[in-house]
Amino acid sequence: MTRLPAAHRPATLEDVARVAGVSRSTVSRVVNGVRNVDPAIQETVRQAVAATGYVPNSAARSLVTRRAGAVTLVVSGACGDGPELFTDPFFGRVVSGVLTTLRPLGVHPVLMLADDDGARDQVVAYLRQGNADGALLVSTHAEDPLPALLLQAGLPAVLFGRPARPLPLGYVDLANQDGARLAADHLAARGRRRVVTIAGPSTLPAGQDRLAGFREAMARHGHPYVPCAEGDFTRVGGEQAMQRLLTEHPELDGVFAANDLMAQGALGALQDHGRRVPEDVAVVGFDDSSAATAGRPRLTTVRQPVEAMAAEMTRILLDHVSDPDRRPASVIFEPELVVRESA
Amino acid sequence: MTRLPAAHRPATLEDVARVAGVSRSTVSRVVNGVRNVDPAIQETVRQAVAATGYVPNSAARSLVTRRAGAVTLVVSGACGDGPELFTDPFFGRVVSGVLTTLRPLGVHPVLMLADDDGARDQVVAYLRQGNADGALLVSTHAEDPLPALLLQAGLPAVLFGRPARPLPLGYVDLANQDGARLAADHLAARGRRRVVTIAGPSTLPAGQDRLAGFREAMARHGHPYVPCAEGDFTRVGGEQAMQRLLTEHPELDGVFAANDLMAQGALGALQDHGRRVPEDVAVVGFDDSSAATAGRPRLTTVRQPVEAMAAEMTRILLDHVSDPDRRPASVIFEPELVVRESA
Repeated sequence: MTRLPAAHRPATLEDVARVAGVSRSTVSRVVNGVRNVDPAIQETVRQAVAATGYVPNSAARSLVTRRAGAVTLVVSGACGDGPELFTDPFFGRVVSGVLTTLRPLGVHPVLMLADDDGARDQVVAYLRQGNADGALLVSTHAEDPLPALLLQAGLPAVLFGRPARPLPLGYVDLANQDGARLAADHLAARGRRRVVTIAGPSTLPAGQDRLAGFREAMARHGHPYVPCAEGDFTRVGGEQAMQRLLTEHPELDGVFAANDLMAQGALGALQDHGRRVPEDVAVVGFDDSSAATAGRPRLTTVRQPVEAMAAEMTRILLDHVSDPDRRPASVIFEPELVVRESA
Repeated sequence: MTRLPAAHRPATLEDVARVAGVSRSTVSRVVNGVRNVDPAIQETVRQAVAATGYVPNSAARSLVTRRAGAVTLVVSGACGDGPELFTDPFFGRVVSGVLTTLRPLGVHPVLMLADDDGARDQVVAYLRQGNADGALLVSTHAEDPLPALLLQAGLPAVLFGRPARPLPLGYVDLANQDGARLAADHLAARGRRRVVTIAGPSTLPAGQDRLAGFREAMARHGHPYVPCAEGDFTRVGGEQAMQRLLTEHPELDGVFAANDLMAQGALGALQDHGRRVPEDVAVVGFDDSSAATAGRPRLTTVRQPVEAMAAEMTRILLDHVSDPDRRPASVIFEPELVVRESA
């Protein structure tokens, strides 16, 4: 019997050709599915492929199929954002939802961080070169030019969150105004009358929508003015905003924070000031991430189903890749109030 | 002037050939760096590439260079682990360190979850097919067969954490026993005499080493017996382990948890039982992840520089890819005690 290649060296096309007793180009034609090869020879080559454990080089195969079997997962932000973005629990939930959808298909996500023009050009070039079939995009800034760049280059892309400026791109989003209204109704039902809010960045649609929804609902409950401090969706940002609000409005008895990390920071600041939660101050967060149940009291919060949203974003992208003429789809998820201990 | 291709269609080799007024194969030879092309023609082709915005298809280019410009970041665990692994803050820190090293090189990490034989075969096939140049591997189980599979296939791989069985693969790790000793010395210095520990999984070297190091140091402080409950490195696991320990050893006055998430869970259980931290019970965690400062009291903990370790793991892999004959390197990082409020 012909000797098989050593275990430590991957089998090559030449190994297959030697075992099958045919030419290298015949093997190549069979492996790449070219027609007009004698069926008996095809079978011989297939047996030799199995015997050698040969794996066709995917770069070669991709030249034929023009499909990469990969998508990029891009976190696109402002200059100054760094890789530490990835330590936000939100990101882990996005990855989890993306993987759940991609894994059964043998498609893999390539992680990219695009925080300046050079990095954005790299993303576009990577996709144009056929390394990936499309982009899943999480923008951390409204002025992010990447969605428009991808659109202009004709590259499939789907966004997490509505784009700040209208663009014909698919996206998933939460009904953020409705979510903020759930928080306002709950604080009002708990009898809170001096309510403040820690808003998300005003440059992000999610930040704008949660603030607008909260203010409108509080106005309907007879509170036309809601003091606000803007945070940056981080724990430290929430802690600092809470300290400012405590200084300017020491009489406050309720807080709505636009995400759980900021709510967690607010809990710390309230505890440092000797305020009991929820007895003195009721706190409602947003997201229902792992941060909501990490400390005590556990957070009453508005649930955003990030994993399900990321899974849907992935499905929309795959649909778009397989049928580029399809119109971009958007799916809006419904928020849900989760009552725990903090309000 | 020759008309440039429309913005929405990427430029092709044919477009470049038309603009340069040369044959398709000449363009191909210049783009792929084949020698023996007239310098003047080379210059004409380069100008045409710039004018059309042509990006060589990387599948084609990779056939020439045999370098993918990508590495896989594999989380390899036991059956039953799911994508929710990625919501652990540890993972975000690894991603952050990997990206910091890869980005300046234009190399991208491909995320893969390998939690059963099929998924592990996929990882090996993905690398054999040349989609990536090597693997960065985080194992969540000692019996994980993936390191040996990669070694056997002759594929470059570097591990986060010492492999459970000796293998000639590079890795980064922390001096875990030394870290646990820092925790023991601190609890002893704080005058704690009835100390318990919440250990990590006994199937993982990090879990074993932290437990062994803690017990040995406590014995040196005159405490030959340290009650232990095993957790699974999750917050809920830490909470449950703390409840068991409180039931079996209600007189306890100190706890060492083998990571911050479990310490955070322990804080919750202690608060639920009306124990004050640190007055009644001192708590020391491990990692210094975001979980350490998320709640109140802030955790005294043993710092593991995960970002720096992941960056080093990445550098070791890139060295190995560029010089496959190099012997596998391992780098051990030193732990550091960070004193905050909980002990």
